[in-house]
Amino acid sequence: MNSEGRIKCQKLLSKVTSAEQAASLITSGSTIGMSGFTGSGYPKTVPQALAARIEQRHAAGEPFRVRIWSGASTGPELDGALAKADGIEFRLPYNSDPIAREKINRGEMEYFDMHLSQVAPMAWQGFLGPLDTALIEVSGITADGALIPSSSVGNNKTWLDRAKQVILEVNAWQSADFDGMHDIYYGTALPPHRIPIPLVRPDDRIGEPYLRCDPDKIVAIVQTDTPDRNLPFAAPDAVSRTIAGHLLQFLRHEVSKGRLPPNLLPLQSGVGNITNAVLSGLLDSHFEDMTAYTAVIQDGMIDLLAAGKLRMASATGFSLSPEAALAFNANAARYHGKLILRPQEISNHPELIRRLGCIAMNGLIEADIYGNVNSTHVMGSRIQNGIGGSGDFARNAYVSIFLTPSTAKGGAISSIVPQASHVDHITQDVQVIVTEQGLADLRGLSPKQRATVIIDNCAHPDYRPMLKDYYERARKHSYGQQSPSLLNEALSWHQRYIDTGSMKPGAQG
Amino acid sequence: MNSEGRIKCQKLLSKVTSAEQAASLITSGSTIGMSGFTGSGYPKTVPQALAARIEQRHAAGEPFRVRIWSGASTGPELDGALAKADGIEFRLPYNSDPIAREKINRGEMEYFDMHLSQVAPMAWQGFLGPLDTALIEVSGITADGALIPSSSVGNNKTWLDRAKQVILEVNAWQSADFDGMHDIYYGTALPPHRIPIPLVRPDDRIGEPYLRCDPDKIVAIVQTDTPDRNLPFAAPDAVSRTIAGHLLQFLRHEVSKGRLPPNLLPLQSGVGNITNAVLSGLLDSHFEDMTAYTAVIQDGMIDLLAAGKLRMASATGFSLSPEAALAFNANAARYHGKLILRPQEISNHPELIRRLGCIAMNGLIEADIYGNVNSTHVMGSRIQNGIGGSGDFARNAYVSIFLTPSTAKGGAISSIVPQASHVDHITQDVQVIVTEQGLADLRGLSPKQRATVIIDNCAHPDYRPMLKDYYERARKHSYGQQSPSLLNEALSWHQRYIDTGSMKPGAQG
Repeated sequence: MNSEGRIKCQKLLSKVTSAEQAASLITSGSTIGMSGFTGSGYPKTVPQALAARIEQRHAAGEPFRVRIWSGASTGPELDGALAKADGIEFRLPYNSDPIAREKINRGEMEYFDMHLSQVAPMAWQGFLGPLDTALIEVSGITADGALIPSSSVGNNKTWLDRAKQVILEVNAWQSADFDGMHDIYYGTALPPHRIPIPLVRPDDRIGEPYLRCDPDKIVAIVQTDTPDRNLPFAAPDAVSRTIAGHLLQFLRHEVSKGRLPPNLLPLQSGVGNITNAVLSGLLDSHFEDMTAYTAVIQDGMIDLLAAGKLRMASATGFSLSPEAALAFNANAARYHGKLILRPQEISNHPELIRRLGCIAMNGLIEADIYGNVNSTHVMGSRIQNGIGGSGDFARNAYVSIFLTPSTAKGGAISSIVPQASHVDHITQDVQVIVTEQGLADLRGLSPKQRATVIIDNCAHPDYRPMLKDYYERARKHSYGQQSPSLLNEALSWHQRYIDTGSMKPGAQG
Repeated sequence: MNSEGRIKCQKLLSKVTSAEQAASLITSGSTIGMSGFTGSGYPKTVPQALAARIEQRHAAGEPFRVRIWSGASTGPELDGALAKADGIEFRLPYNSDPIAREKINRGEMEYFDMHLSQVAPMAWQGFLGPLDTALIEVSGITADGALIPSSSVGNNKTWLDRAKQVILEVNAWQSADFDGMHDIYYGTALPPHRIPIPLVRPDDRIGEPYLRCDPDKIVAIVQTDTPDRNLPFAAPDAVSRTIAGHLLQFLRHEVSKGRLPPNLLPLQSGVGNITNAVLSGLLDSHFEDMTAYTAVIQDGMIDLLAAGKLRMASATGFSLSPEAALAFNANAARYHGKLILRPQEISNHPELIRRLGCIAMNGLIEADIYGNVNSTHVMGSRIQNGIGGSGDFARNAYVSIFLTPSTAKGGAISSIVPQASHVDHITQDVQVIVTEQGLADLRGLSPKQRATVIIDNCAHPDYRPMLKDYYERARKHSYGQQSPSLLNEALSWHQRYIDTGSMKPGAQG
């Protein structure tokens, strides 16, 4: 399908131009609000044209860098290309691009890692500064100039409203059947003018299907026909299937105790192989009529929808494997009424997550024996991706669950450590931890009670005696006994990994 | 005034009995839901009678311990007496009693330190176990048996609803004019039955003035005439006045930039001398027609109300000096329409804090150079009080501000450290830090940008060179450069304090 057919607004057809021409409208030092969330719905050609322009300017000895705001992660054509060109001065709120990650961890790029629910309201607050350009992928433009979003909504509404100029990419690769699948809520405001958000079920539609955009602000429209990033998921292995099994047993137990309804509560699932395995596990479970209120739709959720186990899912974007994306695009019409894509300030809103009572399932880098969770910083200093929506969900969920294999790097890293080297989720927000070793139900436990359960149930046997030894000595020698610690040793496992390549003593890296 | 006159319900008069008799109805191993929030509205005689009974049983060689749930902190007659009798097996969600604190820090008492907004919903969820007894102070009982709350509401609604039996203390010391000052919202539910909470201004009344209680569950009523804990506040000293000055300058600046309305946004203030000094500073400011949506009313807020600078204040309890408490009791009628006391699940509800856009002002124990805040654990292991409502407010505020002198213990402790030894508030939730040295506006900054501003603006000159040296070396040698750290040194300042009595090298404690 030709993307020209996607632009039904005659007036706007005159603005169709090349990616190079569009990129020439972006100036050095300016701030760009990009569409895109977990690799879906990001602009694909103008960022590359901009990167080429930046490289030319750099080759000529001239400075050229921009500030990039987005929904969440994008793809190699955006963060990858611009980071490679050394064109990003400042980035928010989330990144998973490997080239940008390297730049950040070499100290060559400033990265402000944010709660995803807070990006839009903080952009409105004004302290982030002005937004010069909105660069937004859409799947089409209606006859009266409304924008049909593509595979993610993210912060597009806010970028379109706040930016001085708008550049659109109309991507014909995206299914034309996205039309009607979005729900854009225009009722947010700054205090003191905020009102309750009128959503009480994941199914509720509270907005309109299209993004509003002042046509006079649109300075360029570029036609594309390019797939989303679409990285494959690993097939569930024994470890992830075991983790999923422990979690499903917990959910069944909670239903049997009357603490969860038989169809559970709205599921939230972070992106990743482990959470995808849990969704696969739910496919084979007896749970029916489930719903999801989450940020991202990944393969496992599409399978649950297709199988009719999941009644509907609400999110702000997709993160699919190439195969699942093709299959979805071929059958998108089937998902009308079953999928709602919303702005991320709504998909991740604390008010709504707490009201709905989500079951939050997220991955982690490490947890300590008291249940503090590090989701972002490897060895305390090196950013992996970012906190994303995990804080929005973990703090407000009905049950906040974290899932991880008990070790990483072939056993050289223990996911359970004496003290988290960085904290993203405090003990109060971490209620259940699951590894392939078992499940720790931490609800209602004091720190010392938590330590025993986490070490016994979650730690790998290779590290369990080391953790017990640490904890027992901390019980004797710690300054205080609420959360016993040995300050000289608390972060020594991380230093040992850096020095030797393993957290195990005596290992050679 | 005789408290008998406070019991207008004839049917319930027959249940009036002694504290000893009431305490005899509480069994070992049972769970008691106590009224009380920051030293106000807690039961005062039955806990002491229970402590005496426990001591007798212990003297006879018999075990007797109970599990205590409350609103927040209580007073020496409750936590102090029961902890002294070694009668508390488990305590939630907040404690500031020195005897209980010692027990916890010696590892003799389990303490589950919770977000105050989550206590009631988690008690309903069921995983905390059953609630055997509600022991609630009220200021009176109406003719038809409704309970008039006293100086705090806390979790009383939930304890009364959930407990198998109810013991009441009717305290004649509390002002009879509390009648009508409370707003008890009965619209909460467990998911999937939650609906929007219909509060859009701090002034809104959304409930009823009295607590409902099944009269058949009431097993004893005890009459008291005893003041609340009411600890004095220190008069603002030079340090706290300077801190308040920096903060007021920031607020004026935000108003001038159009980022805050001229009458500000609803104020939240943690309890303490520094925040009280800020309230005193507001008294002398040009700000008018302010409101407060907070957990606790302390002296400075009463002064603001009395002066007409604060239009009204919403909270869940008081924490007054003895003088302010007497003055309030003598004039309580004046505050009708200006003060609303609500259940803490409403005063601290994330939905409402975010909607109203509170200006959150809380103290801290230490912040690190990236703006992670430790509010609870001295040297990472020794509990001071608890997280209280600070997490509810800091995460959801319009501006989240933390206030502290730059040093403690006569300069032996720096409030700004290389790495927080425990984290309660992650960098994303800490937007402004103020010490007497200056104010760090961290909004929109990456970790490295934050480090520079915090060290330069907030650290004490005695520690600033040490922090700069640490940070500069971390910029060179850290594993990653998103949040540079030296793991071997990150917690060494705390260990040095434990070893020598000072964070300064070469000092002798």
